[in-house]
Amino acid sequence: MTAKQNQFQLIDEEQLSLQLIEAQYALKESRGKSNAKSQLILVSGIELAGKGEAVKQLREWLDPRYLRVKADPPRMFNHQETFWQSYARSIPAEGQIMVMFGNWYSDLLSTAMHVSQPMDETMFDEYVENMRSFEQDLKNNNVEVVKFWFDLSWRSLQKRLDTLDPSEVHWHKLHGLDWRNKKQYDSLQKLRQRFSNDWIIIDGEDETERDQLFAQQILRAIQHCPVHLSKAKGRWQQAAVPEALLQPAAEAQQDDAEYKKELKRLTKKVSEAMRMDRRNVVIAFEGMDAAGKGGAIKRIVKQLDPREYEIYTIGAPEKYELSRPYQWRFWNKIQPDEKIMIFDRTWYGRVLVERIEGFANEIEWQRAYDEINRFERDLSDSNTVVIKFWLAISKDEQELRFKAREETPHKRFKITAEDWRNRERWDDYLKAAADMLSRTHTAYAPWHVVATNDKKTARLDVLRAILKQLKAE
Amino acid sequence: MTAKQNQFQLIDEEQLSLQLIEAQYALKESRGKSNAKSQLILVSGIELAGKGEAVKQLREWLDPRYLRVKADPPRMFNHQETFWQSYARSIPAEGQIMVMFGNWYSDLLSTAMHVSQPMDETMFDEYVENMRSFEQDLKNNNVEVVKFWFDLSWRSLQKRLDTLDPSEVHWHKLHGLDWRNKKQYDSLQKLRQRFSNDWIIIDGEDETERDQLFAQQILRAIQHCPVHLSKAKGRWQQAAVPEALLQPAAEAQQDDAEYKKELKRLTKKVSEAMRMDRRNVVIAFEGMDAAGKGGAIKRIVKQLDPREYEIYTIGAPEKYELSRPYQWRFWNKIQPDEKIMIFDRTWYGRVLVERIEGFANEIEWQRAYDEINRFERDLSDSNTVVIKFWLAISKDEQELRFKAREETPHKRFKITAEDWRNRERWDDYLKAAADMLSRTHTAYAPWHVVATNDKKTARLDVLRAILKQLKAE
Repeated sequence: MTAKQNQFQLIDEEQLSLQLIEAQYALKESRGKSNAKSQLILVSGIELAGKGEAVKQLREWLDPRYLRVKADPPRMFNHQETFWQSYARSIPAEGQIMVMFGNWYSDLLSTAMHVSQPMDETMFDEYVENMRSFEQDLKNNNVEVVKFWFDLSWRSLQKRLDTLDPSEVHWHKLHGLDWRNKKQYDSLQKLRQRFSNDWIIIDGEDETERDQLFAQQILRAIQHCPVHLSKAKGRWQQAAVPEALLQPAAEAQQDDAEYKKELKRLTKKVSEAMRMDRRNVVIAFEGMDAAGKGGAIKRIVKQLDPREYEIYTIGAPEKYELSRPYQWRFWNKIQPDEKIMIFDRTWYGRVLVERIEGFANEIEWQRAYDEINRFERDLSDSNTVVIKFWLAISKDEQELRFKAREETPHKRFKITAEDWRNRERWDDYLKAAADMLSRTHTAYAPWHVVATNDKKTARLDVLRAILKQLKAE
Repeated sequence: MTAKQNQFQLIDEEQLSLQLIEAQYALKESRGKSNAKSQLILVSGIELAGKGEAVKQLREWLDPRYLRVKADPPRMFNHQETFWQSYARSIPAEGQIMVMFGNWYSDLLSTAMHVSQPMDETMFDEYVENMRSFEQDLKNNNVEVVKFWFDLSWRSLQKRLDTLDPSEVHWHKLHGLDWRNKKQYDSLQKLRQRFSNDWIIIDGEDETERDQLFAQQILRAIQHCPVHLSKAKGRWQQAAVPEALLQPAAEAQQDDAEYKKELKRLTKKVSEAMRMDRRNVVIAFEGMDAAGKGGAIKRIVKQLDPREYEIYTIGAPEKYELSRPYQWRFWNKIQPDEKIMIFDRTWYGRVLVERIEGFANEIEWQRAYDEINRFERDLSDSNTVVIKFWLAISKDEQELRFKAREETPHKRFKITAEDWRNRERWDDYLKAAADMLSRTHTAYAPWHVVATNDKKTARLDVLRAILKQLKAE
């Protein structure tokens, strides 16, 4: 990058502004089209290096109405929240440009600079690696990311502090750093060098060059959005469909009194285990229609107060959700202050219905397994247990249940023409489920395949699996 | 209500469940249709009266996947936030049912019960009145509201506290009230009687009756959603179009050096005034296309850091916004932690473009003036200054600017076929603006009509008006 920067030339302001506006409108017009993109701009750096001024100048050259700016004060990481959680909502939609002053890197720096709890370098680097993976996922999903570090030498910083207008000091209190302290300055510079090799460094010394370099680089980023096709290597290897999916066990009917007693014991134990666990709990259900997701969920919450949990029923995405990365609507549903979150269908829709119906193309769904694994690992790293169920029913049993639903008054709402249509693609779903199970069964978020031809056994098995996973860790 | 309750009869559970599910699905199917509704259920009451249990039972009778539950712990009012602000996001969309345990009434009770700052009765009653107006606006905009107070006698409460399972005590810490204190109990009961006459009172004594009464009342509410046509009384009185709109003054061109000097002085003063003001500032712009909204906004933020303000450019609502009250998207944009919020077009769209294009029917737009006034009064009551501008341009000047835009490279994006179409309805817009100005010019949120045929004078006038309103109060 440095070589390029040294070659950069000041260009006529009006010309620059015109090019920026043209690029901005081209981006805006892309919305809903196959080449749709959005632009995320992360801005961090040394205090008084001119971040604010450069963005301000940019806003004057662009059409300011279509440039959003988000400026959260840096926050210390807390261990119940992924690094992207509080920013997820602000990920720009197709056609939008978003500048983030506060971002995951400024949070990381704040956390690492906090004197009482120094962060070791391995952990710091691990965070950086996870952040880059997250950004790669954004890019693959049409959110361009470009990162700017505004730099300023120690000497210039001190000079600027000397001449500071006291009425403007308020911004400098935000970062909780003492910019008069050379040691802090040096540690910060050392730390940021651990991540800034894919950042564009803007020297804050000269104001005009600073603003132009910043704007020119953004122009380049918007104009030349690369296409990120991180295609899977080699031919797709279809996983074999496991026996448990082909022939779900149908255990003998349980004795009713026994079942009731055991159900009561287990529901009580599950609610206590979830309450006592210091972690949040995410329970995810997938499976064919009528496999018993609703019934299983009902038993999980049986002994809970309705204020203790949230059930998310996932259907087709809304239009505004479609203009963001497909995982976006799930990022926003994960709430650090929600103890128990149950998903009736999940983010696995990408590799099930979207794969089968062609809503996601081959490159997209084949890439999604890794994206999902990263998502679940981030959750797991931030004190959230992810418990995943595939409810396995046989094709015959499904037919029986469909027919029963059509004949039972309070169940007939549960069955639609679409359910019958999905049934015709039974084998496709089995194949997709097999791939999913083999590629996303991880140590931190394992799958539980539960046979549901016998409803009662299935419900008990689900509860037992929850207990097992909560205690196993 | 009491009479009805005494007459209520237990009905067969399966029957009740079936009716509830049918009503729920009918509501769900209404989405997007002309009879679309949503159901908001507020739940408050005495501790241990069984609110949680009743909702739990309801969730078992209904299809739990389409019943959302929100349970915020009660919060004290803070004076930078309207009472509805933190709940706005959870207002249910068409077809949805939402139970709110934490709600504006529980916040009001918490605030009033806080010993160190007792609230006088007049203020309490004023809050209640504002809350009812807000609920009436919700109802008029297809969000049904039904309120339940779960009651329990002092004696029964004490008995239940005696036999409490210690492992379940956690819910009772939430309310910060000492339920062993008879005086507190009595004050709470006295307070809630000041608002509960339009609530359904559920006696928590008998569990079965409690759950059935609650569920039956909700069934009734969903089945018999009344149509709220609070039509304006009498014939619509079209306001006369004021001279300032018909013939906006075109003052002589300013001396350029003078203008620049004064502009610099004013932009500096405006940014300081907004920063120093202890209140948040909302600045709202309306006016014909090309009247100079963008240019005025540019000057307002001239001396601000981009992190200090937010610009909202308002276009057509998205689909998910259309399934809520029309003001909803603005409720959600008002952020108590955002100091300066600038709206390029506003909630007045309801009585301008929506009125003229027929997106809102006569009853809806005629009702909107009062709704808007209430919204702005709530903002004003919670320490937010609302500064509103109508930028008045003449039809000839607009034509000149449209043509200039088409010929200027970096402005041609600003002009579309729609702008020319809107121009054909010039007189309709003038009439609508006249009605708007005469009906929503209030002491707490006055309009500033600024003539913009001369751009420079207009920009200075906008800045002066901001200064005037900020100091006048």
